[in-house]
Amino acid sequence: MISPDNIRIVMINTSDSGNIGAAARAIKTMGFSRLYLVEPQDYPSGKATARASGAADVLHKAVVTGTLDEALEGSHLVVGTSARMRSIPWPVMTPREFAGMLTSERDESEVAIVFGREDSGMTNDELRRCHYHVSIPSNPEYGVLNVASAIQLICYDLRMVLIEAASAAENAEKPEMVLSRTEWDAPLVSSEDMERFFQHLEQTLLDIRFYDPNNPRQILTRIRRLFSRTRLDQLEMNLMRGVLARVQQLVKVDDTPSSSGEQVETGEKNAR
Amino acid sequence: MISPDNIRIVMINTSDSGNIGAAARAIKTMGFSRLYLVEPQDYPSGKATARASGAADVLHKAVVTGTLDEALEGSHLVVGTSARMRSIPWPVMTPREFAGMLTSERDESEVAIVFGREDSGMTNDELRRCHYHVSIPSNPEYGVLNVASAIQLICYDLRMVLIEAASAAENAEKPEMVLSRTEWDAPLVSSEDMERFFQHLEQTLLDIRFYDPNNPRQILTRIRRLFSRTRLDQLEMNLMRGVLARVQQLVKVDDTPSSSGEQVETGEKNAR
Repeated sequence: MISPDNIRIVMINTSDSGNIGAAARAIKTMGFSRLYLVEPQDYPSGKATARASGAADVLHKAVVTGTLDEALEGSHLVVGTSARMRSIPWPVMTPREFAGMLTSERDESEVAIVFGREDSGMTNDELRRCHYHVSIPSNPEYGVLNVASAIQLICYDLRMVLIEAASAAENAEKPEMVLSRTEWDAPLVSSEDMERFFQHLEQTLLDIRFYDPNNPRQILTRIRRLFSRTRLDQLEMNLMRGVLARVQQLVKVDDTPSSSGEQVETGEKNAR
Repeated sequence: MISPDNIRIVMINTSDSGNIGAAARAIKTMGFSRLYLVEPQDYPSGKATARASGAADVLHKAVVTGTLDEALEGSHLVVGTSARMRSIPWPVMTPREFAGMLTSERDESEVAIVFGREDSGMTNDELRRCHYHVSIPSNPEYGVLNVASAIQLICYDLRMVLIEAASAAENAEKPEMVLSRTEWDAPLVSSEDMERFFQHLEQTLLDIRFYDPNNPRQILTRIRRLFSRTRLDQLEMNLMRGVLARVQQLVKVDDTPSSSGEQVETGEKNAR
């Protein structure tokens, strides 16, 4: 089971620093501690500290970044929280379903839960960076939770699952009480490696002129969604990049240098 | 099953009117509407209205009383929320247990959920007025939730139970009671189409000489596993087969006729 220390809460571009303080408090009351702030509009601020109450330590440790990419660095599972995704559908679940999913997440997995701006939530680009979307089943006539309240709810469901898992672990000595669990043979791909894979894939699709770069329609988004929800492991990513590199080599693109020209080992060599 | 209209939220002696506004918002986002304020210290106030955001109607309808007794008038079930009960033990449950209990509550029952002061919670006298106590299983090292956050959590668990009960009762005509669910825009691929996709994929990997057919090792198995667990939809499969067809066309294999030469529409044409 994943530990609370492997879970980070990411707030994008928060305008009211009071909400940052309230979020720190919400996180700590549920037993979490890692807060990332992407381009906060008014931080540090006394208002944040006041609203954090006894959770000033969470605030002190909070990591402020300039981009969402930096805040996601090293994460293996990224979920976004938003009422609205305006283009194509994405896998969406309730906070409780998401919490339940984490019971089968690997122990060492790094999880990022991303919250958007107070007024406008997350952009489509930001939502596309996520493997899944979590949606709170709120009142359809007035569904806009305060961002710190949303953090509180989602952390609460996670805490409940962690508590249940801990008491289930007390049964772990009894082998007849342990559910079967998937043993995987390769580590999961990190968020930043996944971005490099998508760049390589996009470049290869350009190289084979599969789509018109001036009018990509939703092809790239659909392919991104497909590989996002799959949760690639490192062997699989090496395999896929090996295929891409081989295709690029065969079509021998001369006009534009590939933007993804790093050394990629072929799948043949790596997949045992 | 009890209706949201039979549930009142009672706040005792709240000192920060911002918390009253935040509570109104929390209540409304979870589909409730009845707020009782026992001796609020600073109300009405512009701060409450600002924090209520789109829930000003809940604030306008809020009933202000001088005593807890008045706020509890007409109620059949009273629960108190407090981390601490200093005298004899009282029946205590988690918010989720309490929410579950309401499923067997009579339809006409009036329920009051009472929240104490920001700094000192509920007095022993007030706690004794309650049938049961609800305790949020928070971090033992820092368990003090903001009062509006506590209201948000408890209303959330109630809402989840109400939604489940409604869907169990096949009240599917009430769209406001349906859990969020992923709406997908394309049907899933059938098993036999999936096999055809794998044949096409395998042939293409052969065409680009990505693996040695006499010694495929586990490459094909790994790739099959990857796409199997993704559960492709039909648009996605068309897209992927479009990519494969384009690669096959570019590498122009002459020696062996492709075993997957069916007509495949390209993704560009299909992915809208």
